[in-house]
Amino acid sequence: MKSVTVYDIAKEANVSVATVSRVLNNTAPVKASTRQRIQNLIDKYQFQPNALARSLIKKATGMIGIILPDITNPFFPEVLAGLEQEARQAGYTFFLCDTGSSNQDIKDQYRRESQYLGILTEKQVDGIIMIGGRIDLHHCGKEMAKEVAEINKRVPIVLINGNLPGAAFHRVVVDEIAGAERVTEHLIGLGHRDIAFIGGYPQMSNTVRRLEGFRTAMERAGLAVREEWVNHGGFSVNRGKELMGRLLDREGRRPTAVVCANDLVGIGAIKAAVKAGLEVPRDVSVTGVDDVPMAANIIPELTTLSLRCVELGRTAARVLHQLISKSDGVELLTTLQPELVVRESTAPPAK
Amino acid sequence: MKSVTVYDIAKEANVSVATVSRVLNNTAPVKASTRQRIQNLIDKYQFQPNALARSLIKKATGMIGIILPDITNPFFPEVLAGLEQEARQAGYTFFLCDTGSSNQDIKDQYRRESQYLGILTEKQVDGIIMIGGRIDLHHCGKEMAKEVAEINKRVPIVLINGNLPGAAFHRVVVDEIAGAERVTEHLIGLGHRDIAFIGGYPQMSNTVRRLEGFRTAMERAGLAVREEWVNHGGFSVNRGKELMGRLLDREGRRPTAVVCANDLVGIGAIKAAVKAGLEVPRDVSVTGVDDVPMAANIIPELTTLSLRCVELGRTAARVLHQLISKSDGVELLTTLQPELVVRESTAPPAK
Repeated sequence: MKSVTVYDIAKEANVSVATVSRVLNNTAPVKASTRQRIQNLIDKYQFQPNALARSLIKKATGMIGIILPDITNPFFPEVLAGLEQEARQAGYTFFLCDTGSSNQDIKDQYRRESQYLGILTEKQVDGIIMIGGRIDLHHCGKEMAKEVAEINKRVPIVLINGNLPGAAFHRVVVDEIAGAERVTEHLIGLGHRDIAFIGGYPQMSNTVRRLEGFRTAMERAGLAVREEWVNHGGFSVNRGKELMGRLLDREGRRPTAVVCANDLVGIGAIKAAVKAGLEVPRDVSVTGVDDVPMAANIIPELTTLSLRCVELGRTAARVLHQLISKSDGVELLTTLQPELVVRESTAPPAK
Repeated sequence: MKSVTVYDIAKEANVSVATVSRVLNNTAPVKASTRQRIQNLIDKYQFQPNALARSLIKKATGMIGIILPDITNPFFPEVLAGLEQEARQAGYTFFLCDTGSSNQDIKDQYRRESQYLGILTEKQVDGIIMIGGRIDLHHCGKEMAKEVAEINKRVPIVLINGNLPGAAFHRVVVDEIAGAERVTEHLIGLGHRDIAFIGGYPQMSNTVRRLEGFRTAMERAGLAVREEWVNHGGFSVNRGKELMGRLLDREGRRPTAVVCANDLVGIGAIKAAVKAGLEVPRDVSVTGVDDVPMAANIIPELTTLSLRCVELGRTAARVLHQLISKSDGVELLTTLQPELVVRESTAPPAK
């Protein structure tokens, strides 16, 4: 007879592993009817968790915390969707902690990250996933990095698409440099020579990587990057409008294609172009990065670099689960390859 | 000398009220340096919380929980943004609990709601806000409603835009019936007579209300609702595409305007119309409900009903804070009026 595990009990009882654990260890209240259902299954299978399982179960609260900077940026909900699918299958419940960076002082954001790190640790979550915020800084301050490293000694932490100096963290990242090269090569392949780059923040590592990929591809093709066509300022639709508006207002030569730091900037760029009487892609090609749902929903549909958000979330959850269950040989770095998604916003330049 | 409150200490120390409370009551660990900073301020001002304040502080964890069904639907992040702004000002931190309804069995969603309600109660949050999920059911099962009512006896709960039978809950709602009337009257005012309604789920109260407003406005104008033009099926862009596609595929008369149950369905409807070779709004007018950011970002920009998401969130946080601090005379029901936002997707019908 196949031996029954706590996972089997949880599955058959339609509850999380954490709930079974609560009944087994009597660590927290469980609804009477649920408790009875679980107890019946334990009796039915004469389930006896072995010592290791019992200690693992005992330690686990079945909860993980996710700290992210801005739930209104559609990139994050997509990553979360993948993360949640995977984490749920492994029996976890999770708390999202939104530090609410949009329209807020950036220092408040980092302070709230600290606050959430503290609370999640107090609440004894089994693990923490961080995405955005301080881990996206090109040069993160020593103290802010050290705070995370200290917590990481007690609670497993996985960083998505970012890093912190001074210690080794488990990280799941998308190769944004290679991705930005691919986007730029797509435009060069269509015949573009005059290509601009807009959006992002120069102090953020994601912007630095995307710009690096852009420069590498341009250089490889023997094309000069015109520095007056490289403009930062943010990741929102409104920033995209402004930055594109400024490009179009300049006297002299105009770019025939614009690489945008993310999809929202790309959408803003398209809106600014249309407002200026141009047609996309006939008069100017536009690309994004992320592949949020909106990218496929605007007209024309946006050519973009898929950061494979859902897979990114899934992978991070998987790595965290391995760390929590103390699996052997968990890689420090897991790298996903992004995918170029060619839609309607790119075409050869007008003759 | 103005007496110093716990809020002043928290503000000057750059921490939440909850953290000051932890130092005062020694209820949970606080980082040594933070503890020292707070203690210094307590000493400096010779701060003595009065008995009432101390009991309030003692009880409060400074945490609230928010249970929502699908973070990838952009309506929810907008409401959250308002909620968070307000809750933060009052010194709260919060946990978002996403029950992840998209692509999942609906029963799993309700089960996860129960799970989160249990965990949040265990973790002794000061209050809970619920939005979507079971509270949006037109007929919610007795047991599911009772579960929430029981928790509400111990922990203050505020429902956003929904309700549950069998008990009185504190609710913050937008008047969707009046709103849908306004949208329909806008189309009738432009000269439309042949108007369809698509999207939503008939078992959900938000759909029932929006359809009721549509029917009321049609009836008042002496226009017949053609039942073959009233089609439900969901709230996503893809559902909008399918439902609009079916309307356009029908033989015989076509509607000249389509009222969509939300913005995502409206965006899908526009995409289906464009794909069928029609121009919006020249050949068909389309409206949405919600006013998510995407509504202003698609081309043509979507005429919609703003549910005033941010204000809705702010108000719910304010009501919950009043309940937590045991203010007198907190209204059971707070109603916001939605606003018609006329953009580019509506115009008079072609002659």
